[in-house]
Parts: sequence; C-alpha cells; structure tokens
Amino acid sequence: MGHVLTLAEELGERGIIEIILKHLDHMPDVPISFGDDVSAIALGDGKLGVLKTDMLVGKTDIPPGMNDWQAARKAVVMNISDLAAKGVKPTAVLASVGIPKDFTKRQIEQIGKGLNAGAREYDAYVLGGDTNEAADLVISCTAFGVVEEQYLIKRSGAQPDNLVAVTGFFGKTSCGLKIMLDNLSASPGLRRALIKAVLMPQARLKEGLAIAKTRAATASVDSSDGLAWSLHEISKASNVGFIIDNLPVAPEAREFADIHDLDSTKLSLYGGEEYELVVTLKPELWQDAIEVVKSVGGVLVKIGRVTKEKRLILKTKRKTIPIQPKGWEHFRQSELGT
Amino acid sequence: MGHVLTLAEELGERGIIEIILKHLDHMPDVPISFGDDVSAIALGDGKLGVLKTDMLVGKTDIPPGMNDWQAARKAVVMNISDLAAKGVKPTAVLASVGIPKDFTKRQIEQIGKGLNAGAREYDAYVLGGDTNEAADLVISCTAFGVVEEQYLIKRSGAQPDNLVAVTGFFGKTSCGLKIMLDNLSASPGLRRALIKAVLMPQARLKEGLAIAKTRAATASVDSSDGLAWSLHEISKASNVGFIIDNLPVAPEAREFADIHDLDSTKLSLYGGEEYELVVTLKPELWQDAIEVVKSVGGVLVKIGRVTKEKRLILKTKRKTIPIQPKGWEHFRQSELGT
Repeated sequence: MGHVLTLAEELGERGIIEIILKHLDHMPDVPISFGDDVSAIALGDGKLGVLKTDMLVGKTDIPPGMNDWQAARKAVVMNISDLAAKGVKPTAVLASVGIPKDFTKRQIEQIGKGLNAGAREYDAYVLGGDTNEAADLVISCTAFGVVEEQYLIKRSGAQPDNLVAVTGFFGKTSCGLKIMLDNLSASPGLRRALIKAVLMPQARLKEGLAIAKTRAATASVDSSDGLAWSLHEISKASNVGFIIDNLPVAPEAREFADIHDLDSTKLSLYGGEEYELVVTLKPELWQDAIEVVKSVGGVLVKIGRVTKEKRLILKTKRKTIPIQPKGWEHFRQSELGT
Repeated sequence: MGHVLTLAEELGERGIIEIILKHLDHMPDVPISFGDDVSAIALGDGKLGVLKTDMLVGKTDIPPGMNDWQAARKAVVMNISDLAAKGVKPTAVLASVGIPKDFTKRQIEQIGKGLNAGAREYDAYVLGGDTNEAADLVISCTAFGVVEEQYLIKRSGAQPDNLVAVTGFFGKTSCGLKIMLDNLSASPGLRRALIKAVLMPQARLKEGLAIAKTRAATASVDSSDGLAWSLHEISKASNVGFIIDNLPVAPEAREFADIHDLDSTKLSLYGGEEYELVVTLKPELWQDAIEVVKSVGGVLVKIGRVTKEKRLILKTKRKTIPIQPKGWEHFRQSELGT
C-alpha cells in the first residue's frame, strides 16, 4: 500500500522505551534491574517497595466494544498482573485519567467504578489520582506493593533444565479481537468466551503469590505481550533458551481457528493481553508449585523446559520450529494469526 | 460568545475527580485522607510509603514555547513538589509517556533527558515506566518516598492563631504565560525571569524537608493551583479561616502588572503552577522554621494568620476583600489577572 512508517511506528513502543532508558541515570544498588516488569526500592529490613506503571490509551488499547468501565478496570488489572508475576501483593493503586471533552457524567462514573472494581477484585484500593482533559481517553495506573526481597521473582533467574509452566491457556484474546474488530463469526457460547477474554482480563495474583511462597520459581513474567515475547524476555534476562513441547492452546482458540482456517499456534504464541504468568521452576519443587496453585483454585501447565543453548524452539509431533521474538504491541497491529 | 460548555468544562478537573472519588471504596485506617496532596500506606514501624501521581497533557498543560525537555522535567517536578509539601523525600519516579505519532527520535531523547533531569535535581531516580502511542503528548509521573509518619504534614492540622507562610513570591508564572500566550511585552531581563518561572518550575523540596524536621508546621500544600486555592484547601481540610495581610507579590510580577495595567493582587492570588509551599506554623516554633529554611538556602515569608472563623480575607492598607475559592486548572483558562 506504500504506507510510509512514522518514527513511532518504526520504533514501536519498545524502541521508544529503549531511547528513553538510555538517557536515565541508574540508581545505585537498585534491587531489580531496569527492564524487568516492575521497579523496586529497598525499604530496609529485607523489604522492597514495588511499583509498576502502565498506561492505557483509547485509540490503541481500547478496542471498539470495550466500555469505559471495562477499560478502567483493565487499566488497573494490567498493572496488578505485573506485580502478580513478581510474587508481590498489590496494596495501593493510583490512577491518572485523561478525559476527552465530550465525555458524559455517566462515562466518568463508569471510569470511577471500573477503577475501583479492578483494585477491589485483588484486595487493593485506589488511593488517589488525578484527572486532566485529554484528546483521547488515557488511563495511567500505578500499582504498589511491599514484598520481602527473598520472595521477589525476577526475570533473570531461569536456569538450564528448569521447567517452564503457564497459569492458563492462550489464544482466546486474539480470537476475541478477531470477532470484535474483523466481525468473524462464532457460535454464541464460543463468542461469549472469546470476547470475555478481551473485555475482562484476569490477573493471576493468587497463583503468583502462591508460587512465590514455594520458592520454586526462578523467573516469571506475565504474558501481556504474548507467550513468545514473554519467553524471549526471560531468555534475554536469564541468558537461556527454551524448548516448548506442549503449547498451551486454549480449546476455544483451537475451535475458533478451525472454523476460520486460522493458525492456532500463531494465535497462541503471538497474541497478547492474556495476563497468564509464564514461569520457570526448579524441577525438584515442581510438585509443590502445582499443589499450591491448585490449592488456590488455579492451574499450572508444564509447557517445556529451559535450555543452556539460547534458542527458542517449538517442538510438535510433526515439526520443530523457531519461536520468533514477535510480540504484542497493541490491538491495531496487523499481522496477527493469519 | 454563546459558547456552550461541554461537561468536562462545566465540571472542571476537580469536579471530575469528585465524581470518580465517589465511586471508590476507602481503605480502612488509611494514614492520609483522600483529597490530600498525596496518598500514603503504612509500611510498619511508624513508616509510610507516600505516593503521588499527576499527569501533564500537551494541549492543556504544555504552553507553546515550552520544549519537550522542559515538559518532561516539569512532569516530574510537579509530583516532587507535592511530596515536598508533605515533608517527604522522593526516592523513585515512574513515568508513563504517551507519544504522538509524528514525534522525532530527538524529541523522544529530550523527553528521556527531561525526566531524568527532573528526578536527579531532587536526588531521586526514574526507575521505570511505559510508553504508548497517543493523540497528544501525555506524561504521567508517579513519585514515591518513605517518611516517618510523625513528620508527614497533612492539610488538616491548621489551628487558629497559627501563622501562615510561603516559601517564595507569587505571580511570575501568570505574567510569564501572558508573555508566552498573549505576546505582552517586557524588557529582556524581566521577560527572561517571568518566562523562566513557567518553563523551569522548582519544587521547594529542601524547604519542605527542613520545615518538617522542626515539627513547626501544622498544615502544608503546594501552590500549584494558586495561592488562593491552596489557602482554601487548607481551610476546608482544617476547618479554619485566614487573614492574609502581607500578600507575597513577586517584584517582577508587580513590575509587569504596572507596565500592562494588570492587577498584581489577582495575578498573585489566582495564578498557579508556582510550586511554592503554603504552610501553617505554630507561632512558638516560627523562629526555628525561619532558621532551618534559611540554612538550606530558602526563605519563609509570613503572610498572615489562621483564624477560627472560616473566612478567607485579604487585608491591605486600603481595603479588606474576600479571597475567592478560584484556582488554576490549566493554562487555557480564561479569566486570569485581568
């Protein structure tokens, strides 16, 4: 189509972060390095204050069909998800909200209710915030929690022969977006399940906290940028590779992919906004981890193992293919699962 | 002109916050109430984690003539200023940045450098953040610090017969904006001083920390919404009134007002974005407060006293007038100092 990429498109959100990071002084003795999912600061007595901020912008992050309540709730949940991945219980949430001029009072109320719902579902509270007029709806949330440093799960601890596991199945969000954006069809029940994955994401907080307590995890991230990207992030930070031999495709995603002749492998690997945890675990503590996650009502699905060789490979019965470092940036990206 | 107010204009930013607050559950035993300048959470051992988030939006908060470096720096400084008012040393800053599509790499670099400069000036570090594409430049920062609860200065402690003092003089920012937005003239030196007040705001951190240590302060806010608004905020939270008999008009603002036949009283009372601290103090510790502020290179100017009667009054040689609950919302407001 001859579309000339703008700089922002060319760099992508991650490229822009890289440029900004380059110009920041680094705090000496910071307990968790730049580029992990959260920031942390030592509070003394082995405790860390853990902070995460993430912004949701209407045009690129709120798909048509997601209402204001859901958008506000999601803006909170996506920050809590990052704390969950690190084994940190969120206690406080702050929200900065940019409100378009033409918003109604009811819309603003829905935003208040959605922020509150997102926090209260995870036993946290919205403690404060700020609003401004903005051209597009912008909801920037910060989640805060305190953790004992020994329980914080970084990205960088994965070791060869660790197991890799996830807290759920992938691909539903990508399929839900195809229904919402491209009008692809699905039976009512399937449609409901897939769209719910988009509109009502869940942070795996119970699972993350339970896993942290076992000390089984060596690395963890959430999968908001997609399963493939999450694996690549751990790979980079821990200097390891992965062999994935049990791709956790959601049954609903498989069914939807079959109907529309889509590739469920790609949908599961390169989707995003799913908020499952991707965790590497010490094999000797694997049973402990499974049991504690089960005891809080979750699942832990083994999907492969960590390798010394820094390659990421998907092994199926039929073939062995590389897992690309492709990730989710926002819902307007073009090359999803086709 | 028959301009019909939109809801956002009608409510104003503070009206929107009120609506959102109404829908938030309140954390039990929260150490500082909703509506103070910061949020806080108990960390144990008498310590509080203190958080503040505030968003800067291009169209309404970044006047033409302020560059990206200055905007990013200001987005950090305005959050640090709120911690300064509470007597809290900031340690960490997070930044969420919404970047317009047409931004250049150099602009993004300037934002990184500006964020870093804003934090490092106050001995804090930018520890993390997030970027997104956005319709307009949006910089949402969160500042974090730890304080011993006994030193936290709330809005609600002002007592009748306390003194009221400020850390500097008012009106320069309003005048600077008149130069930048309305092209009003000034001699080169005056012009430079007034525009600098807009482009390079300073948080009174040294002063705030020094005052907190004396235990002289009973209430404190920063004056980012204007001196009048700050006094009204303390009045509401502490259930007191004020007699102001020494309005701290900056000499530069007086000079500029004289040239252009503006009302320097209004410019000083109802401007904003000045970031001076407005503090009520126990008279018996007034000398201590003056001395510690002087010892860190600042000034503390007595401007009046707290009254039991909940009225806000400005007393000059010629007249006694009420101080209106009018405050700064953003630079596009219409009725400034005319």
